[in-house]
Amino acid sequence: MSAFRFELLGQHGKLRRGRYHTPHGSFETPCFAPVGTYATLKGLTPEQVAGTGTELILANSYHLHVRPGAERIERLGGLHKFMGWDGPILTDSGGFQVFSLGGKVAIDEDGVTFQSVIDGSTHRCTPESVLTFQRQLGPDIAMVLDHCPPGDADADYQRAAHERTLRWARTARDLHERWGGSSRGQAVFGICQGGVHPELRAESAAAMAAMDFDGYAIGGLSVGETKQQMAVALDACADALPAGRIRYMMGVGMPEDLLAATARGVDLFDCVIPTRHGRNHTAFGKDGTSLKLRNAQYADDPGPLVEGCGCYTCRKYCRAYLRHLAVADEMLAGILLSIHNIHFLQDLMREIRARAEHQE
Amino acid sequence: MSAFRFELLGQHGKLRRGRYHTPHGSFETPCFAPVGTYATLKGLTPEQVAGTGTELILANSYHLHVRPGAERIERLGGLHKFMGWDGPILTDSGGFQVFSLGGKVAIDEDGVTFQSVIDGSTHRCTPESVLTFQRQLGPDIAMVLDHCPPGDADADYQRAAHERTLRWARTARDLHERWGGSSRGQAVFGICQGGVHPELRAESAAAMAAMDFDGYAIGGLSVGETKQQMAVALDACADALPAGRIRYMMGVGMPEDLLAATARGVDLFDCVIPTRHGRNHTAFGKDGTSLKLRNAQYADDPGPLVEGCGCYTCRKYCRAYLRHLAVADEMLAGILLSIHNIHFLQDLMREIRARAEHQE
Repeated sequence: MSAFRFELLGQHGKLRRGRYHTPHGSFETPCFAPVGTYATLKGLTPEQVAGTGTELILANSYHLHVRPGAERIERLGGLHKFMGWDGPILTDSGGFQVFSLGGKVAIDEDGVTFQSVIDGSTHRCTPESVLTFQRQLGPDIAMVLDHCPPGDADADYQRAAHERTLRWARTARDLHERWGGSSRGQAVFGICQGGVHPELRAESAAAMAAMDFDGYAIGGLSVGETKQQMAVALDACADALPAGRIRYMMGVGMPEDLLAATARGVDLFDCVIPTRHGRNHTAFGKDGTSLKLRNAQYADDPGPLVEGCGCYTCRKYCRAYLRHLAVADEMLAGILLSIHNIHFLQDLMREIRARAEHQE
Repeated sequence: MSAFRFELLGQHGKLRRGRYHTPHGSFETPCFAPVGTYATLKGLTPEQVAGTGTELILANSYHLHVRPGAERIERLGGLHKFMGWDGPILTDSGGFQVFSLGGKVAIDEDGVTFQSVIDGSTHRCTPESVLTFQRQLGPDIAMVLDHCPPGDADADYQRAAHERTLRWARTARDLHERWGGSSRGQAVFGICQGGVHPELRAESAAAMAAMDFDGYAIGGLSVGETKQQMAVALDACADALPAGRIRYMMGVGMPEDLLAATARGVDLFDCVIPTRHGRNHTAFGKDGTSLKLRNAQYADDPGPLVEGCGCYTCRKYCRAYLRHLAVADEMLAGILLSIHNIHFLQDLMREIRARAEHQE
């Protein structure tokens, strides 16, 4: 039996409670994965990350391929050893980065050629090359190359991108199978596209499902569409994807979106929001609020960020100290606020999972 | 009996082995204290700091008085609670900062008036005001205001600065005694000046010793003098200071200086070097060497920073990963290198203490 397995443990309406098994341990779903772009969650040690309740982390194969190089990380023993994280790791393929980071991008049938935003050097990604990079990096879960169009792309462009994504997915699936499939220690997930058009989403999801991937991502959302458009697209995907496989919505991390998407059957999320917000001195608060720690209102506030929060930051520090660190631009401000924000989302995921269990 | 007590546990030549007791626990001497200027060791949690073997930390009363304010920290429960450090804390008086940070400084008999380098606002420090700030902050050990002259000051200037420092010290000592002395929970240390002139150093140390402070700092060294000049000045101080009181050399943290100064009877040191070096991607190596982690030579190096080092960083990460973090300018680079550098100095202090014990 493959080390990779999705157990569906319960369901309430469309909300699913599950567990995904990998060679580096399992993670409970619905699951939120924070992002360590360059093989580091900015400013946090793996122990601090684990202390937030995080079970799965994401790294960016595009960034790591450019610097320090996927081959180098392979020589050094792979991503887990390199960055000191023993739990499950997922890497994205770089599709989203190629299309969203700006710079010159030329798409053809076989892949995409683009300039690095770091040093201007020219790189090429193909469905085969991104799997090769990820095979070298060695995460538990690799993603296929997709064509992720901008949010304002018209229906024709969305159809072309979704169909190209399918063709690239077939190429990737075939290569993955030639390599022995997930039994070699790495699962590969397909990515559905189709923008906000339910018929394209249904078509994309059904065609992906037919390719029998280890899991399915829903890409190209949270790029400017309305909440209603997101819901319609998610429903179209969910109806066409197999119930027994994990469903992963990429790049989503705001509490309201996590609540909405899990209610529509999504099992897995990743986002830079908790760490980026933290470095920008913003903390998640109760009931969808947020705290801007540089504000003078916190200068003498002896309370924790969130009353009753069990995170390291809230157990140990008052708002006045965090405000002081933020105003003094101290590194520890971003660190402590990132810890709180990730822990806050992990608490939310625990609540969502409990809801799926109790209402079963 | 006062909570403050220096135990002299052993001596070999002039090298002393001791223990200093405070209301927040004791620290072994010779002791190295890393610096948390703004009530934070840059990028490190108190648990990470403690994990390096650190027992005492230093904070800067000058910086904390300017921002966020000593009165504010007092209202919030004092420095220990504010920054989450339960062990001993020492604050400097700001004398060194006033005279070294640049900006307009006007010295008169009663104190010094200067402009904040942060916002240009005008501040005044007197022997009484700096003790008041430190009483509000609440560290275990407070320092008197001293006049720390530049390294290239001539003998007349050095004499004037040393004599002014003595007058200010008397004012501070008298205020400290009116407040009840160290029985109120805070020790106050005097600071010897006198530059590189042994006769001034001897005069300063003898006069300070006559004032019966809880401990004695040796200021105004490591400001450009030669190793030989430093040694002569240290010897002159050590001969005039009482054997039963702790001796603190301010602003010194290079391994060779720690070795030289402990051999001349100094018990306590503080310095920003291990954390500043860490943020500049420099690590202490064996035998006085240092590693510049941005260098390409480390790109594929699977070894730890220092073979056999027991610090968190060396136990967990290879040089190639640290080089990657440094090149990508990731926060974790400075954090992991700071942890190594502090741990490295604490290992050195442990070795020095063991030497004092075994050769006793």
